[in-house]
Amino acid sequence: MEYRDAGVDIDAAEESLRRIRDRVRSTFGPHVVTDLGAFGGVSRIPGADPDLLLVASVDGVGTKLKVASRLGRFDTVGEDLVNHCGNDIGVHGAEPLFFLDYVGMGKLDPAVVESLVEGMARACRASGCALIGGETAEMPGVYVPPDFDLVGAIVGVVRREAFVDGSSLAPGDKLLGFPSTGLHTNGYSLARRILFDAAGMSPDAEVTAGLTVGEALLAVHRSYLPVLRSLRGVMKGAAHITGGGIPGNLVRILPEGVAARVDVGAWPTPALFRLLRERGNVGMEEMYRAFNMGIGLIVGVDAAHVEEARERTGGEAIVVGELTAGERTVHLEGETRW
Amino acid sequence: MEYRDAGVDIDAAEESLRRIRDRVRSTFGPHVVTDLGAFGGVSRIPGADPDLLLVASVDGVGTKLKVASRLGRFDTVGEDLVNHCGNDIGVHGAEPLFFLDYVGMGKLDPAVVESLVEGMARACRASGCALIGGETAEMPGVYVPPDFDLVGAIVGVVRREAFVDGSSLAPGDKLLGFPSTGLHTNGYSLARRILFDAAGMSPDAEVTAGLTVGEALLAVHRSYLPVLRSLRGVMKGAAHITGGGIPGNLVRILPEGVAARVDVGAWPTPALFRLLRERGNVGMEEMYRAFNMGIGLIVGVDAAHVEEARERTGGEAIVVGELTAGERTVHLEGETRW
Repeated sequence: MEYRDAGVDIDAAEESLRRIRDRVRSTFGPHVVTDLGAFGGVSRIPGADPDLLLVASVDGVGTKLKVASRLGRFDTVGEDLVNHCGNDIGVHGAEPLFFLDYVGMGKLDPAVVESLVEGMARACRASGCALIGGETAEMPGVYVPPDFDLVGAIVGVVRREAFVDGSSLAPGDKLLGFPSTGLHTNGYSLARRILFDAAGMSPDAEVTAGLTVGEALLAVHRSYLPVLRSLRGVMKGAAHITGGGIPGNLVRILPEGVAARVDVGAWPTPALFRLLRERGNVGMEEMYRAFNMGIGLIVGVDAAHVEEARERTGGEAIVVGELTAGERTVHLEGETRW
Repeated sequence: MEYRDAGVDIDAAEESLRRIRDRVRSTFGPHVVTDLGAFGGVSRIPGADPDLLLVASVDGVGTKLKVASRLGRFDTVGEDLVNHCGNDIGVHGAEPLFFLDYVGMGKLDPAVVESLVEGMARACRASGCALIGGETAEMPGVYVPPDFDLVGAIVGVVRREAFVDGSSLAPGDKLLGFPSTGLHTNGYSLARRILFDAAGMSPDAEVTAGLTVGEALLAVHRSYLPVLRSLRGVMKGAAHITGGGIPGNLVRILPEGVAARVDVGAWPTPALFRLLRERGNVGMEEMYRAFNMGIGLIVGVDAAHVEEARERTGGEAIVVGELTAGERTVHLEGETRW
C-alpha cells in the first residue's frame, strides 16, 4: 500500500507549494528574514533591536484526530499540536512565547473543546508558552460529527546570533537522532487505512505485549524543546521529522553542496512501524517518506562536539549519520533494525 | 428562523468559553498583558522594550467557504480571512506584522489553494503584512470535497502608549459606526439556510437591481485598517462587529459602569439584511445578534473629537450612539432604517 492509496497526495502538495511561492514572496516586507522552506517563518520586530527575531509556525495534527474521536480521548491531541508547533520553532533555536488555537466542529461539543484545551494548556505550561488566543468555530455541513479539525499557531523569540538554520553545516559534521514516541502527527491516514480498514484490527489489539494499537497511535508527539535547549551553542542545524519523513525534512536544512548519509540501522525501529509495514505491505522507501520510523529529530553538530552533545542530552543522542560533499540530498543506507 | 435552527449554538460556544477559561489562564506567564475577551491576545517580548507589545489573533471565515465553493471562486475568502484577522488586532491600535494560514482539505486541490493564497497575498500586501508561513493539510475523511477549512493567525505590533482597549471609555463619549460591505464573515450558516435551503433562491437571483445573491454573499470582508490608522490618537476603544453582532462585540470594550446606547436608525441597513429578515422570518433581536446589520466597526471617541474623526475618515463616520453611566451592556434603540 502507498500513501496515495490512503488519499494523501504528496505530489499535489508539492504542486501547491510551487504555485503559491511567488505570491507568498510578494508579501515580504523589510522585516521578513527567511524565505519559504524552513520550519518556521522569521520576522524582525519594527521598533525593537533588529537582532531580536520572531519565529512563527502554524500546523494541525492531521487525521490523528480521527483516532482520538474513535477512542473518545481528546486531551493528548491538544498536547500533540502544541509540541508539534513548538518543535518547528525550537529547531531554529527559538524559545516559545505564545500559542493560538482554532477548533472547527460541525456541532460544538463543549466537553470535547474543554478536553482539547486541557491538553493544549498542559503542553503550553510545559513549554513555557502562553495560550493567548483561540477560536472555536461551529461549521455545520463542513464538519460531520464526530470529525473536527484542530489548528495551532506558535510564535517564539530568538536572538540573531542564536538563530539556527543549518547554513553552517559542512561535510564531516555528524547527525544525531533522537527517538520519537510513535508516529507523532504524521502518516495517520495511511496508518488508519492499514490497521483499521485493511487489517481490520481493533484499537484494543496489541502491537507488542502491553501496548495496544490505540495507545501506540495516540502516543503524544514528543516535545524536543528540552533537547533543543540543551544543545544550544553546539547545534548547527536541526530538522523536525514530520510529513515527508527523514529524507523530506533533513534535506530542508542542508546547504548547497552538502549531502547527508543516514544509516537506518543506527537505531532500533519501534514495533509499530514493523506492524504497519507488514500489515500494509508498504515499500521501505514509502515507509521512510510517510513515517518518522522512530527518529523525530535530527541535529547536525561538528564531529568534535558529538560527545558533548551526548552528555548534554543524558546520553540519548544516537549518531545516525554524517554529512558529505555532494548534491543537496539525503541518502538512506544500511538495514532497518527491527 | 433562528441561528440555532441553522445548526449554530451560541450557548454551547459560551459554555465552551466558561469551561476553558481557567485552563487558558494557567498558561499565562509574565509576558501576557491582557486576559481573555479582547479581540486579540497581547504579549510583551522578552529581551525587548517592555512597552513594545505583540497583539495576536486567530480566526476562520466560517461557512462563507461553502458559498465560495458553490460559486467556484476562492480568492475573495482569502482576502476575507486576512482582513478579519487584521481588524481584530487593528482595533487595539496594532499594526499587522505577519500572517500565517492553514488550509485543510479532503483532497488537495492545487488550483483552489493557489486561488486562496492569491487572495490572502493580495490582502496581506494591502495591509502591509507578510505571509510568512502556512500549512496545507490533506485530511481524507475529515473534509468531504468540495468542503474545506481556512484558518489564519496574525501578529501585529503596538507600543503600550498607543494600545487601545476601551478602558478609558466614559459616559458622554460618542460611538462612530463604519459601514460593512455585507455579512463580512459572520452569519453564513443562517444566511445559506434562509436563502438557499428555505427560500430556494439561486446565487444568480437579485438582492437589488444589479446585485446578485452570490455577489452580495461573497462581498469581501472590509479591512478597517485605514480607518483605524487614521483615528489613532482619538480612538478610545474600537469593536470589530463579528459573531454576536453589535451587542455581542461592543460590550467587549466597555469598562464597568458604562453602558452603550446604539440608535439602529442612524444608518441605512443594506438590502441583503432585509432579504434575510423577510425570507427567514428572523426576529429583529436575532438579526442583530447573527449579523452586523451594515456596521462592521464601532469606534468610541470623546464627544469633542467627533468632527475631527469624521474629517480624518473622509466623512464616513456615522454617529450611531453614545455611552452612558449604567450596567455594562449594549442597548439597541430606534427603528431599523431599511
